[in-house]
Amino acid sequence: MISRRGLLTGGAATAATAAGALVRHEAERREKGRNETERRETERRALAPVEPFHGAHQAGVATAPQAHAVFLGFDLLKGTRKEAIVRLLQLLTDDAARLTQGRPALADTEPELAANPARLTITFGFGPGLFEAAGTESPVKALPAFPTDRLEKRWSGGDLLVQVCADDTVTVAHAVRMIVKDTRSFARVRWTQRGFRSANRRNLMGQIEGTVNATDLGRAVWIGAGPLRGGTTMVLRRIRMNLETWDAADRVAREFTIGRRLGNGAPLTGSAETDAADYARKNRLGFPVISEFAHIRRAHVADPALRLLRRPYNYDEGLSAEGESDSGLLFASFQADVAEQFVPVQRMLAEGDLLNEWITAIGSAVFAVPPGCPPGGWIGEELLG
Amino acid sequence: MISRRGLLTGGAATAATAAGALVRHEAERREKGRNETERRETERRALAPVEPFHGAHQAGVATAPQAHAVFLGFDLLKGTRKEAIVRLLQLLTDDAARLTQGRPALADTEPELAANPARLTITFGFGPGLFEAAGTESPVKALPAFPTDRLEKRWSGGDLLVQVCADDTVTVAHAVRMIVKDTRSFARVRWTQRGFRSANRRNLMGQIEGTVNATDLGRAVWIGAGPLRGGTTMVLRRIRMNLETWDAADRVAREFTIGRRLGNGAPLTGSAETDAADYARKNRLGFPVISEFAHIRRAHVADPALRLLRRPYNYDEGLSAEGESDSGLLFASFQADVAEQFVPVQRMLAEGDLLNEWITAIGSAVFAVPPGCPPGGWIGEELLG
Repeated sequence: MISRRGLLTGGAATAATAAGALVRHEAERREKGRNETERRETERRALAPVEPFHGAHQAGVATAPQAHAVFLGFDLLKGTRKEAIVRLLQLLTDDAARLTQGRPALADTEPELAANPARLTITFGFGPGLFEAAGTESPVKALPAFPTDRLEKRWSGGDLLVQVCADDTVTVAHAVRMIVKDTRSFARVRWTQRGFRSANRRNLMGQIEGTVNATDLGRAVWIGAGPLRGGTTMVLRRIRMNLETWDAADRVAREFTIGRRLGNGAPLTGSAETDAADYARKNRLGFPVISEFAHIRRAHVADPALRLLRRPYNYDEGLSAEGESDSGLLFASFQADVAEQFVPVQRMLAEGDLLNEWITAIGSAVFAVPPGCPPGGWIGEELLG
Repeated sequence: MISRRGLLTGGAATAATAAGALVRHEAERREKGRNETERRETERRALAPVEPFHGAHQAGVATAPQAHAVFLGFDLLKGTRKEAIVRLLQLLTDDAARLTQGRPALADTEPELAANPARLTITFGFGPGLFEAAGTESPVKALPAFPTDRLEKRWSGGDLLVQVCADDTVTVAHAVRMIVKDTRSFARVRWTQRGFRSANRRNLMGQIEGTVNATDLGRAVWIGAGPLRGGTTMVLRRIRMNLETWDAADRVAREFTIGRRLGNGAPLTGSAETDAADYARKNRLGFPVISEFAHIRRAHVADPALRLLRRPYNYDEGLSAEGESDSGLLFASFQADVAEQFVPVQRMLAEGDLLNEWITAIGSAVFAVPPGCPPGGWIGEELLG
């Protein structure tokens, strides 16, 4: 065996000399190959799906959900003040602007891994702690306690959220790595939550997710005035599913619990997934077809301007020796107003959702999601600039 | 809040009665919807990509690698003898035959999740311990020790391997769950290893994987005679990458280490990825262009009949608080003869691969991969039947 020390010092002069020769050889070869490379690059870009980074809103909110996500929660290092936070956000904005467009980050250590953006989006959210550190009033605060929650600190809170989504796993891994490296001098990783979605939108309980979702984003999601104008808020909840006991429930009990058919996601009062649920309909015995305690009734919001934009991902973290899975849902929702939109729904669910027998919130965090920025700007400028 | 007990006993008579009404209502509705459902099902099947299950060889070996994989290692429960192993294999073969074709497993608890096979393959391998438990001589044995290995028990060995691969994450999660449930009475999960691949075939160090691979499968992979005829062997190695120090190496050092250009994967003596490496070529100073210690030279096998069929996946398991990643490669290779094919290459690598400075094998396992089976047969029948 030869050691790395051997490669880099006199122990392997061969290596160093050959490396020198290689550099020269490389330079000649690159000059020749440049035109060909540029032509190929242009072709590739035309094919690689890219989500825009700059704009009025951050990408990764209204963006059609990609197949893979990593949610990163950071805690600012002690003593990190406004000036440092601004530097960090400028740095991360630059990383995101490059990586999402298929270009390497500055000082990218694996530039080849940036070449396939695969609809990469990188979205930033600020927790109450970031505003506190910056000496600014926070537009968001932690959620009230819900009696059904069993929150674990390791999945909750955080000063800075970075949501990384793409249709390619290696693209996500590379972007996460670059973001984490550039954050290292300012913050430490509090948690990492990995999620995935299937093209058929089913979660690990077999239900179709996101049937009813906010569509009037101008009212339900984007904030219209104040420093967060053009931005939104994000709630991220880690919801563990007890699949072992869920499996013990039969099909009728499951559909009764959800208020929808498992087969095609139709409400129990309809025949297609997109049929509006009829909450007033009674069966011949005079009972509501969709129970008072059914999940969809408890989660129902009549006013489209108050609906949540849900953008959930599944999680699945290995198996115990007994083969029990640690899996569930990373429930991510975007809404203009947490107190007016998220809290009332969550209260209804906590009070009487039949599904609570099989699901438990074990993590919770709230973030302000600043608006997007133009080229040359940075995310958070309106709030901290 | 109402409790589950409440739902299922007298506390919520409403629920039970409504559920009864729902069952009748469901039956009527289903009768009506059946023709429509069948038509849609036929359409869907025509679109859903399916890999065949039955045949001379097991799927998941020569199959073009899917985007996602879970490797499950099981230990048989103490006292599990041949009869029980045969029952287990019959059960798992049935699961695999159904799930890979987009049909629910018997007693599938989430049948909707089976509907999207997404090129699902489920491949079985038998470790030495399975043969021992069955009272049969094992055609495979553990690898010899290599000086560079730092093997951890929690990633090594195992009596039974199940490799689950598909292009959809939820499909993989569901198949894993069904397999684990059906295995529970016979074996416990020893390890679970999750992997992913990018369409661009790059690993997390940025290199393109699998450029030179076995193509003459009839000689290099499939065993021609004996009880494993039509089968093969599998080596699974968990190779941790030290990305922090790899990032500290510059481009020239990295390309010198690998023997290939990072940009397009071409050997240092060529210009395209698929160019054959010229190991004899010298630079103007008289040194080999591809170092004696370069990874591709150490891994090179001149005889196509002795090449490994490599089918590796990346792994990435979260971040430490310092943001250091636990990531690397799940190196899976298939070869007709471990001793003749895998061991000599691994010895060359262990003795002098420059890459050893940045990679470490922390897990290792070897399995006999039985041939495929016809409809009505089961995997392992030639060995244990």
